[in-house]
Parts: sequence; C-alpha cells; structure tokens
Amino acid sequence: MIPSPQGPPSTTVHVPLGDRSYEIDITSGLVEHAAARIHEVIPDLSHAIVIADLAVDEPWANQICEGLSTGSQKMRVSRRTVPSGEPSKSIAEFEQLLNWVLEEGGDRRSVVVAVGGGVIGDLAGYVAASFTRGIRFIQIPTTLLAMVDSSVGGKTGVNLPGAKNMVGAFWQPNLVLIDTEVLSTLPERSFLSGLAEVVKYGVIDDAEFFAWLETNSKALIARDSASLRYAIQVSCQCKARVVGEDERETTGRRAILNYGHTFAHAIEATAGYGKLLHGEAVSIGMQMAARLAIDLGLTNETLLQRQTDLLTACQLPTRFPEADPATMLPVMMRDKKVAHGKLRFILPTRLGKVEFVGDLEEAAVVRAIQASR
Amino acid sequence: MIPSPQGPPSTTVHVPLGDRSYEIDITSGLVEHAAARIHEVIPDLSHAIVIADLAVDEPWANQICEGLSTGSQKMRVSRRTVPSGEPSKSIAEFEQLLNWVLEEGGDRRSVVVAVGGGVIGDLAGYVAASFTRGIRFIQIPTTLLAMVDSSVGGKTGVNLPGAKNMVGAFWQPNLVLIDTEVLSTLPERSFLSGLAEVVKYGVIDDAEFFAWLETNSKALIARDSASLRYAIQVSCQCKARVVGEDERETTGRRAILNYGHTFAHAIEATAGYGKLLHGEAVSIGMQMAARLAIDLGLTNETLLQRQTDLLTACQLPTRFPEADPATMLPVMMRDKKVAHGKLRFILPTRLGKVEFVGDLEEAAVVRAIQASR
Repeated sequence: MIPSPQGPPSTTVHVPLGDRSYEIDITSGLVEHAAARIHEVIPDLSHAIVIADLAVDEPWANQICEGLSTGSQKMRVSRRTVPSGEPSKSIAEFEQLLNWVLEEGGDRRSVVVAVGGGVIGDLAGYVAASFTRGIRFIQIPTTLLAMVDSSVGGKTGVNLPGAKNMVGAFWQPNLVLIDTEVLSTLPERSFLSGLAEVVKYGVIDDAEFFAWLETNSKALIARDSASLRYAIQVSCQCKARVVGEDERETTGRRAILNYGHTFAHAIEATAGYGKLLHGEAVSIGMQMAARLAIDLGLTNETLLQRQTDLLTACQLPTRFPEADPATMLPVMMRDKKVAHGKLRFILPTRLGKVEFVGDLEEAAVVRAIQASR
Repeated sequence: MIPSPQGPPSTTVHVPLGDRSYEIDITSGLVEHAAARIHEVIPDLSHAIVIADLAVDEPWANQICEGLSTGSQKMRVSRRTVPSGEPSKSIAEFEQLLNWVLEEGGDRRSVVVAVGGGVIGDLAGYVAASFTRGIRFIQIPTTLLAMVDSSVGGKTGVNLPGAKNMVGAFWQPNLVLIDTEVLSTLPERSFLSGLAEVVKYGVIDDAEFFAWLETNSKALIARDSASLRYAIQVSCQCKARVVGEDERETTGRRAILNYGHTFAHAIEATAGYGKLLHGEAVSIGMQMAARLAIDLGLTNETLLQRQTDLLTACQLPTRFPEADPATMLPVMMRDKKVAHGKLRFILPTRLGKVEFVGDLEEAAVVRAIQASR
C-alpha cells in the first residue's frame, strides 16, 4: 500500500506486460490535456477514431476531440457515439463500427480512443483488436467502475445472446487516461456501484487499504478528489500487478479478481440484465462468497461483518431478496470459468487474502445464496 | 534448401514462435491417424469443434470426426459445414458459428479443428481466436494453397464488404496436419492455383528451389506424392522462418510474402471476386511485379523469362487481358499495406532475392500493368 493517501495531484501506475506494457495516468483535469499526452505516447498519430458513450459525448468526448483536432499537432478525427448500456456490446454493433472505421479511411496506423464506461471500452477495444488484426488503442474511462476495473487489463469483447463476454480478444491499450473530474457528471447510483470493485481489492489483496476505506468511505461518497485518486490508484495497482502475473487468465492467478463475480453474474442474469448495476450485483456476490467461506470454515464472521458494514457505508446492497438457487445455479454452471462442469470460487480466508476453492458440494452454495436473501 | 527431394515419407516443420511455437506435419495418409496425433499435442482434449468446408466434408472431415469420436481416447465432437468460397468469410457467418459453438457447450478447453481451404481456415481460426477470447486451434488444410500459405502463420479473419481480410486476429494454431493424399480430391484448377504460391517461395527466397521446380514441374502437376511433399515442405519452411521473424507484420520482414499480392488483390477485385482464383491472380501479379522491377532497373529480363516459363509450365495464367490501371490503382491504394497513401512493393532483384520498394512513380506501375495485358 502507498504510505499516504494525500499524494501528488497526478499519479502514474505502470502495467508490466513486456512489450505490451503501458501506463495509467490518474489525475484531475486531464481531459483538457488528453491530446498532448496521447501524442507523447503515440508520436506518429495522424488519425484518431473516437468511440464515445452517448451519455458522455457532451462534454467529455467533445473536449477530447477538440484537443485532438486543433493545436500544433492536430490530426484527422473520426467520431461516433454508441448508446449506453449492455445491448451495445453485440456483434451487430461491432460490425457497424468496423464498417464505419473502414468508411472513415481507418488503416493500421489509426488509433481507437474509447470514451465511456465498461461497455464502450470493451466494444471499442474489440474493434481496435480486430480492425486489420489489431490497431492501437487508448482508454479514457468515464465511470468509476471502468477506471478501477475494465479499462485496465486488456479484456475486450462483446456478448452473445444470453452469454456475457463470450466473444473477444485480449488487447492491451497503449495508454489509460483517468480523470477524476469526469466523475462529476456520473449519476450517483453508477458512482456507488463502482465502489463495490474498490472494496473488492481491499478484501482480496490489501487489509490496510480495506481499513483506509472504512475510515474514508464518507469522503469517497462525497467524491473528494484526493481520496478518489488514492482509491483508484491502489485499485489499479492491484489489478495491474495481477494482470502482469497472468495476462491471459492461464495460470489461474487472475481469477482472484473474480471474487464475488460468479455469484454476481448469476444475480445479474436472474434479476434481468439492467435491473441491478454490475457493481451492485458484485456487492451482493461478495456477501454470498463470504458466507460460503464461513460455511466451509475458511473464515469467520468478523470478515463478513466488516465487509457488510463497509458495503453498507458505500450505500451498496448487501442482500438480494429474489435470490433463488434454482435459477442461479444453472447460470453459474454456464459461466465460462467453469471447468469440466465443476464450480470454482474465490473465497476469502482473512481480509486481504483469498483462496481458490473448487470441487465443493452444491448444498453449501445453495445455503450461501439463501442466506443472502 | 533440403538436399534431396526424396526424403522420408513424413516430415515435420517447426514454426518458431516462443510459447506459441507449433509443428507442421507433412505426410501421406495422415487423415486416418489425425486423432492420435491431435491427442499427442493436446492431451486434455475432451471436446472437438470441427468446422469443415462443405466440399470436403465427405470424405475427409468425416474420417477425421470418426477418428476423434471413436477409439480409446474418444471425445465429444461437434461438427458443422460451411459453404466453399469467399462469401463465407463474413461477420454474419462468424456470428452464426460462435452462437453454434455456444449451443454445443463449447468452453475454454474446447479445440477448433478447421478442415478445408483458406476460407475455412481463416474463418474457423477467427472463431477460435475469439470464443471466450481464444481457444486452441488445429488446421487440417485440404487445398494446396492452404497447405503452403494460409494454414501457416496465424493470420485469421473475415472480410468487410469490399475489403478483404479487414477484420481478424493473429492466432497461431497448436498443430497443422498436411496430408498430401487429400489433394487427390482437389479440382485441377484449384490445385494449379496453389502452385503459384509455391513458385513465389522460389522467387523471393530460394533460387535452388526455383531450379528444382523448373526440373520437376511435370511431376508436381501429376501430383506425385514425394515431389508434392518436398515442395510443400520447402514452402512451409520458408513461410515458418519469415513468420518466426515477424509474427505480427510489424518489422516489415513478413511483407516479402506479399510478392505479387498488391497487384493480385487489385486483379481479383477488378476481375470480380471468384472469376480468377487467388493463385491465378498471384501468378499474374508476380509477372507485373517482375516487369515493374525491370522497369526500375532492379533486375533483368532473364528473371522474368524464367518466371514466365515456370508459371506457364504450371499451367498458370501470366497475363490479364482486362488489366486496367484506371480501375486497379484505386484498389491498390486501399490495400491495408499502404502506409500514408504511398504504394510499396516487394520486387525481385535476382532469383531468391527481393527488395522492399516504396515511394515510386505511378507511371512505372501503370506501365507494368499495361505490359501484362
């Protein structure tokens, strides 16, 4: 953990991936200087393909495009908005974007710039991964969730009907620009949803950070700039380290990031996509996972209590009244992390420490779901 | 060059790509032993997804599926055919296959097996690259063109309307199985078309192999098994070496494989896709490239004459009566290898040696096209 939460106003996190390494800039007021920073990282840039979430086109994508198309290093900018929300992560939208990039004269030297949340980042990233078998890519996340999770790590892709993230590529960005000021326009519920993933990093990797979150939850909810920067920095550092150890999810190490997520995906699917935000489902999913860990004797009630209190302080749901093992279990069995039809979970043993648990009895999972209603 | 064309009945070519390295087996009667060889390379295989060209489903895909689903190491086999021909390389077909793989219960441990020519290999390879962000992949090419070219090197993808191979991924196979016996069912024109790429390797990389081809063209056309094995082996060795030096087409080295291809793509597009086979267009394209090299003073008439004679001996076209600079040049400018709007060519200086030539005057290109009518 970084010693002081009151660091400099600008922080850079390095993602160590050999010749695919990149930096995450975290600061405030970055959007207005985005063009200069992009030019630093990609000096030969002459054509930017900006794909933005309709909801943040004004003011953020607008500012970025203006910066890119004016000034001493001005370049050609193609710009397109995509509707917010999960339905945009489809092969149909992917195809439309690719045809548009071709019409715009995109080539191997063009650079895709994603401006939006996880949906836009995943979709635009997959376009970047696929156009002429891969072009350069910059992430400018505009939701807290995307800042601490989806914009880091190179997972891109779209959904198939009934199966999330089933199609895609690992494609690392060349740069991630995180401007905490952008969060000022983020709706409250979406902002709070992002905090669930922040809490997750504390539980899986960093007890000291978890304690810091307990002390500073009020400042975070008030969107205090320094507190946010620190929370995002620690989250990105954790994710960058794990991704650096297991870029393509082959060693199993990266799976620790899925704490609460096997439950969360089933919660989202049975609630109906869109009813619960992803972070809200993750919040409930972490509760189910903690309860499962207690049931299996891996941890004690104290961890669950502190997790419950912190999530509650973050105004996140900790229970799911409609939780039904009969509908959730089949969805969990279809999860793409299931191997040979066996459920596997990331479960906490103490704050800051998780274990991989496979081959467990279904009854324990059922109890964890039922106890979270 | 390998000293003797009368090698052992089975040859293996290694493709050196670090942790993505793989072997190309070249032999006769391999299809009936394909299952055993696949199990050797992928011991934990339990679900094979066989995607076959409709034209070779009987007898070849049938034999392979039978081998996989019976015997001591039998596994679950999902099988689907795709119509032959370029229109199958579309995002629509890609999407249908992905949905089918999901319905068939494919997961991260499934393996895609492509049985067919370049169209099937590119399409099935892109499905393998994309499903759950990448699963294992085996190429069993059934055309000479696919054996010596598209099945080696990891280029996968589909077309956009009016733009070939515009979408895709670099995704290396885990194994390539080349059975020369399979060529017995290949139509004559398709077989001869494959010889164009074989001749290409002689021109760009290996004067001795070119001379061997001059001596053995009759045996090749008669589909003599030992001669074919040798020609395929030298071709694959050349391609494997170049791909090993420049996997993702970033250093420019891999571009030497495109000798004749910038012209060929424009020939295919202006002739109307499907009118000329790819190898036929490459044959004419190499003639245009050689003429351009002479025009620029890079080489002499002898090279062109020997190339013309060998292509003619292989019953390949060396002229394109409809060649029209006015329609071909705009297509060439749209080629995805064009950088900053400048045409670049791979041109021969002597047999076995090519150079990268950029920034040349359009008039010389026009003359090379006109001289090949």
